[in-house]
Amino acid sequence: MKVRGKYYRTIWFKNRSTVQVIDQRYLPYKFVIENLKTVDEIATAIKDMHVRGAGLIGVAAGYGMYIATLTAPKRNYDEYIISSSEKLIATRPTAVNLKWAVEEQLKNIKKTETLEEKIKISEETALKIADEDVQFCKKIGEHGLKIIEKISKTKKGIVNILTHCNAGWLAFVDYGTATAPIYLAHDKGIKVHVWVDETRPRNQGARLTAWELLNHGVPHTIIADNAGGHLMQHGKVDMVIVGADRTTSTGDVANKIGTYLKALAAKDNNIPFYVAFPSSSFDWEKKDGVKEIPIEERDSNEVKYIQGACGDIIEEVLLTPQKSPASNYAFDVTPSCLITGLITERGVCKANKRDIYKLYPEH
Amino acid sequence: MKVRGKYYRTIWFKNRSTVQVIDQRYLPYKFVIENLKTVDEIATAIKDMHVRGAGLIGVAAGYGMYIATLTAPKRNYDEYIISSSEKLIATRPTAVNLKWAVEEQLKNIKKTETLEEKIKISEETALKIADEDVQFCKKIGEHGLKIIEKISKTKKGIVNILTHCNAGWLAFVDYGTATAPIYLAHDKGIKVHVWVDETRPRNQGARLTAWELLNHGVPHTIIADNAGGHLMQHGKVDMVIVGADRTTSTGDVANKIGTYLKALAAKDNNIPFYVAFPSSSFDWEKKDGVKEIPIEERDSNEVKYIQGACGDIIEEVLLTPQKSPASNYAFDVTPSCLITGLITERGVCKANKRDIYKLYPEH
Repeated sequence: MKVRGKYYRTIWFKNRSTVQVIDQRYLPYKFVIENLKTVDEIATAIKDMHVRGAGLIGVAAGYGMYIATLTAPKRNYDEYIISSSEKLIATRPTAVNLKWAVEEQLKNIKKTETLEEKIKISEETALKIADEDVQFCKKIGEHGLKIIEKISKTKKGIVNILTHCNAGWLAFVDYGTATAPIYLAHDKGIKVHVWVDETRPRNQGARLTAWELLNHGVPHTIIADNAGGHLMQHGKVDMVIVGADRTTSTGDVANKIGTYLKALAAKDNNIPFYVAFPSSSFDWEKKDGVKEIPIEERDSNEVKYIQGACGDIIEEVLLTPQKSPASNYAFDVTPSCLITGLITERGVCKANKRDIYKLYPEH
Repeated sequence: MKVRGKYYRTIWFKNRSTVQVIDQRYLPYKFVIENLKTVDEIATAIKDMHVRGAGLIGVAAGYGMYIATLTAPKRNYDEYIISSSEKLIATRPTAVNLKWAVEEQLKNIKKTETLEEKIKISEETALKIADEDVQFCKKIGEHGLKIIEKISKTKKGIVNILTHCNAGWLAFVDYGTATAPIYLAHDKGIKVHVWVDETRPRNQGARLTAWELLNHGVPHTIIADNAGGHLMQHGKVDMVIVGADRTTSTGDVANKIGTYLKALAAKDNNIPFYVAFPSSSFDWEKKDGVKEIPIEERDSNEVKYIQGACGDIIEEVLLTPQKSPASNYAFDVTPSCLITGLITERGVCKANKRDIYKLYPEH
C-alpha cells in the first residue's frame, strides 16, 4: 500500500544480499526502513517485533532462510542451514506460519545439489511465500469488497466500518486481511470511513491501523475501545471487519482481546460482523473455541506502562499505581453465533461447520 | 476510607478558615493535600478537576459557599455571595448536584440575619451536605453488601467483582457508590477481589479506583477495558457493579463509555450486573435512555494523548499518528434489559418503571 504517495510492501529485497523491512517499532512516529543482512539480524527483527503479524513474520523467516543460504560457510554448510532454521523458528515459538515457511525452505534447499542452486531456489521460495501472502490478502479483499459495495448501494452514503487491532498490511506483506476489502473499496472510489479501535493494551489500532489508513488516504477516526457500542447504538457503524488469529472448524474465532465485546454489540444492534483471514488460520482440530483455544497471558507491564511520543522522543510512562497488579490476556474467543460471515481467500461463508467444509472440502 | 492506614474523606475542614482536599490530579503517583482558602481557589479546584465526581463537586461547592460567607466584605456582602455562587455554578455547568448544593446554601444564608449567623448556618449546611453524601453512599453499601454476602455464601470462595471507571470514594466524600458494597464486604471479612477496568480514555479505573482499593487493602487487578468479556466467559467474574451518571425513570443507565459493552457480556454469560447510585442521579423526565440522554463529546486529544509517570515527572505522550482524527464520546447508555438491579440509598430494585416508582412513590 502507499506511504507518502509511494507504493511499499512491508518486506522486500534491496539487492540480492539485503532484506529491507519497515521497522514497526517506530510507527506511527517515524518511518524507518531497516537493512537486514544476516540471519541474526532477521531473527532479532522478528523476536523484538521490528516486524510482527502472522503473515509478515512467516515471510520474514522465509527471507531469513534465503539469507542463510547466502551467508553459510562452505565447510559447515548443512549445520549452518539447520541452526539458522532453528534460530528463526525459536523467535516466535507459537507462530504456525513462521514454522511452515522455514520448513518449506528447508525442504526445497535439500532438493538441490550445488550451492548456487540452493541460493536460487531459496530466493525463489522466499519470493513465492511473499507473493502468495499478497495474493491471499488480495483475494480476501475482492470477496470482502462485494459486501462493502452492497452496503454502499443500499445505504447511498459513506460506509462506516469498525475494525479492531491491526489486521492490516503491516501484519502481512500487502493489503492485510480485515483492511483488504477497505483498501480495495477506497481505491475503487467507494466512500468508506473506518472507526479504528485503539486496541489496548498494545494499541495496534491507534499506532498501526491508523498510520496505514492515514498514509493510504482512507478516512478514519481513532476511538477508545469503549466507544464502539455507543456508535453502534446510534447508527454510526454499518459493518465490523476484524482479523483472526485462529478459527475453529466450527467457526469460533480467537482474535485480539476485546473482539468478543464488539461482536456482542454488533449482534445487539443488527450490524453485520465479518472476520477476514487466510485459511492457514483455521485450526481444523478444534471444535469449541471458548473451551479449547489456549489464550496467551502476556506481561502485565504492557497494561501498566504505555509507549508514546513526547516531542521527538519515544517514552514509556506508568499509568497505574506502581504496586497494583494487572492482568493481560492477549486474545479472546468470539463464538460463531455472533459472526455474520468469514471472509477467506476462497470466498465468504457462514461461521458454521457445514459452510466452512463446503469451501474447504479437502479437510 | 483509608490511605496509608489513616482514615480520610476526600474533603474536610483543616480549621474553620481552610478547606482541605485530596488533589486528585496527582493520583495515583503522589498523595497531595491541597489547602483552599478562597472561593477562587475552590472554583479552580472544581474547574480544573483537582476534585471530581458528581458527589464530591457538589460537596466542594457547598464548602465553597461557606468560604464565601467567611471572606465576604461587609460593604458588598450580598453581591459577593451572589457572584460567588455564580462562579461556583459556572465551574461545571452540567453538574446537577453542584447547582443544588449552591442553591441550598443560598437559601439558608438568606434565612439568617447577622453575618455570624450566616457563617454558622453556612458551615452547618456544608457539613450537612457532606454527611448526607456519606450516609447515602453508606446506605448503598449496606444494600449492595447483602448481594455480595449471598454470592459469597453460595460460591464459598472469593467473590470476583468487575467495575468500570471510578464510582469510588474519590468521586464522593467517602465509600463511593459502586465501591461501597465492596468496601463494606471487605471490612466485614468477606473475601472479595476486584477487576478494575482501566477505563479509557481518561483511565479513571487504572488511576483512581486502583489507588483507592490499593490504599484500603482490597485485593484487585487492573485490566484493559477489552478484557472483561474474556474473564466473564471463563467464570472469573461473579458480578459487575458500576455507577451511573444518569438513570431514566424506566431504568436505562448513562454511565462512562464502555459500560454498555460490559453489560452485554454479563448478560451473555448470565452474570449479575448491578448499577449503584444515589437517587439524585434519577432523571424522572426521561423514558428512553438511548434516544433521549444527550451524550457529551469531549476533546479528541484525550484519546490521542495520555498522561503517565516517567520517574518522578508526570508527562503527556502522543499515542497516535499526529494527523489522525479521534472521537471521544464520554458516556454510553445501558438499556434496562441488561441490568439485574439498581442499588440506591433506599434499597435494591429491578431496572423497570414499576419497581423504581415503588421505591420512590413521591415521584
